[in-house]
Amino acid sequence: MDIGGTKTEAVALDREGRVVAGARIPTEAGADGVVSTAERVIARLAEQTGRRTAEFASVGVGIPGRIDRERGEVHNAYNIGVERLPLARRLAEATGLPVALDNDVTAAAIGAAHLMGLDGVVAYLNLGTGLAAGLVIDGTPIRGAHGVTGEIGHLPVDPLERPCPCGQRGCLETVASGSALKRYWPAGGDHPGRLLLAAIDAGDAEAEHAFEQLVRGAASCVRLLALTLDPHTVIVGGGLRLLGPRLLDGIRTALDSWATQSPFIDMLELSGRVQLLAADSSAAAVGAALASEGRRR
Amino acid sequence: MDIGGTKTEAVALDREGRVVAGARIPTEAGADGVVSTAERVIARLAEQTGRRTAEFASVGVGIPGRIDRERGEVHNAYNIGVERLPLARRLAEATGLPVALDNDVTAAAIGAAHLMGLDGVVAYLNLGTGLAAGLVIDGTPIRGAHGVTGEIGHLPVDPLERPCPCGQRGCLETVASGSALKRYWPAGGDHPGRLLLAAIDAGDAEAEHAFEQLVRGAASCVRLLALTLDPHTVIVGGGLRLLGPRLLDGIRTALDSWATQSPFIDMLELSGRVQLLAADSSAAAVGAALASEGRRR
Repeated sequence: MDIGGTKTEAVALDREGRVVAGARIPTEAGADGVVSTAERVIARLAEQTGRRTAEFASVGVGIPGRIDRERGEVHNAYNIGVERLPLARRLAEATGLPVALDNDVTAAAIGAAHLMGLDGVVAYLNLGTGLAAGLVIDGTPIRGAHGVTGEIGHLPVDPLERPCPCGQRGCLETVASGSALKRYWPAGGDHPGRLLLAAIDAGDAEAEHAFEQLVRGAASCVRLLALTLDPHTVIVGGGLRLLGPRLLDGIRTALDSWATQSPFIDMLELSGRVQLLAADSSAAAVGAALASEGRRR
Repeated sequence: MDIGGTKTEAVALDREGRVVAGARIPTEAGADGVVSTAERVIARLAEQTGRRTAEFASVGVGIPGRIDRERGEVHNAYNIGVERLPLARRLAEATGLPVALDNDVTAAAIGAAHLMGLDGVVAYLNLGTGLAAGLVIDGTPIRGAHGVTGEIGHLPVDPLERPCPCGQRGCLETVASGSALKRYWPAGGDHPGRLLLAAIDAGDAEAEHAFEQLVRGAASCVRLLALTLDPHTVIVGGGLRLLGPRLLDGIRTALDSWATQSPFIDMLELSGRVQLLAADSSAAAVGAALASEGRRR
């Protein structure tokens, strides 16, 4: 399952990793709310598949925040009202099943690589309210030392040095994310991504400028991932993927224009590596389930 | 072996990966010169170990430039006078041994992790004339799609936007590298790293300022690697490692000062992850040999 700020989505996978059932319910905030949400969505999958909960092999949870996989704890998941929650233990007690936790972006990276049939090095760029990446090599995520793999949103890069909630200035998240878009285009309100393309089509120059800044920021994330991990594929996901083909085209155009300025960048063939996650993808739920099974450590 | 701009260093490893012989000879430039240098250094190791060349199991070569491992080709290794060289085939024909090529920084990363006994995610930061990183997970290097894994030197990050030979501006290499140090401190001549600490100790304020800029740049590389790969260890290598404990202390101090400004950075415990490669290390030669054996793919 993928426990998000507003909804929790879950899938049941068969032994071959195919989705055989899916459910989506609102997320209850707070530690008890999250545990109860998870229990209810598992019960829903049991109903749909005509099985008892005990018949599932394992439960995988993708959830925001810093994840301590070994202890099965979630830390600092503020958008679901969780400061610290031993979610794996509590859910294992409630269901009798083995439970594995993953950061939601890591889970989405695993799931997206699986669903899109991508081998090699895959970087998943999550353009949501915040900005982060998930990194997968031949289906196996890079998990690193302190649970912050792919936290590229907090790399200070922007000479404008806008303050970031993390305490630094000019972080990549202040340039390429939903929160950055909100600042580029205050007229777009709390969910500017939903209104942006229509505003551009209606001739709103502010909206267009905001979109260009967002696209350039996203392209610089792709370049960053390419020059660190040299991925075969960069998947653009997160809520802003709903900007669709125009987002993808914009990112590719920016990368191509940089390539004309640098033979080195040209050689990297960056624009050909970028793909968009499907709008209706359940990547994070699928990836969490796969990771729980140890099929894709 | 590690084929460098001025010298070529080679080691013989036993089955357990222990160094049993070593040799160092000047590198002859150009395609033929490089092949003949490699042949001669192998002959030297055969002499030292009292074996025939044919008794070696394999040859691994770490070499600058862009490496096409599958074709066994070196491209654009300008500092050894090579535009394109099918080194693996030519050396295999000359010696009768299987030959594997690796980028010199990747080889050094593999070798350093092995020699220092480091598991988990290891990032090797090569502060040489240029700037690049090698990335290793449990002994296995990340090789990526286009042979540019770890090319962080060409990430544009610096608001001063100094031109970089790659065609971009403000690349990390213009901030943290031997060539950056040369520009920070022109009085240091062609090899400023060799004179820098003595000049600082003699009260040269320009030298001290240059050192501070270099150290801050190197620390920002560590932060970059931490926020992408979350490595357990970042090893500082390359020619500038000869600045020794003062370089390491400087990097740690910069990281600690950033941690006081950001709870997020503080949580990452960056300064504790940084180590210095030993001055006399043969990391690249050892890593190339290990990689050729497939022990550490």
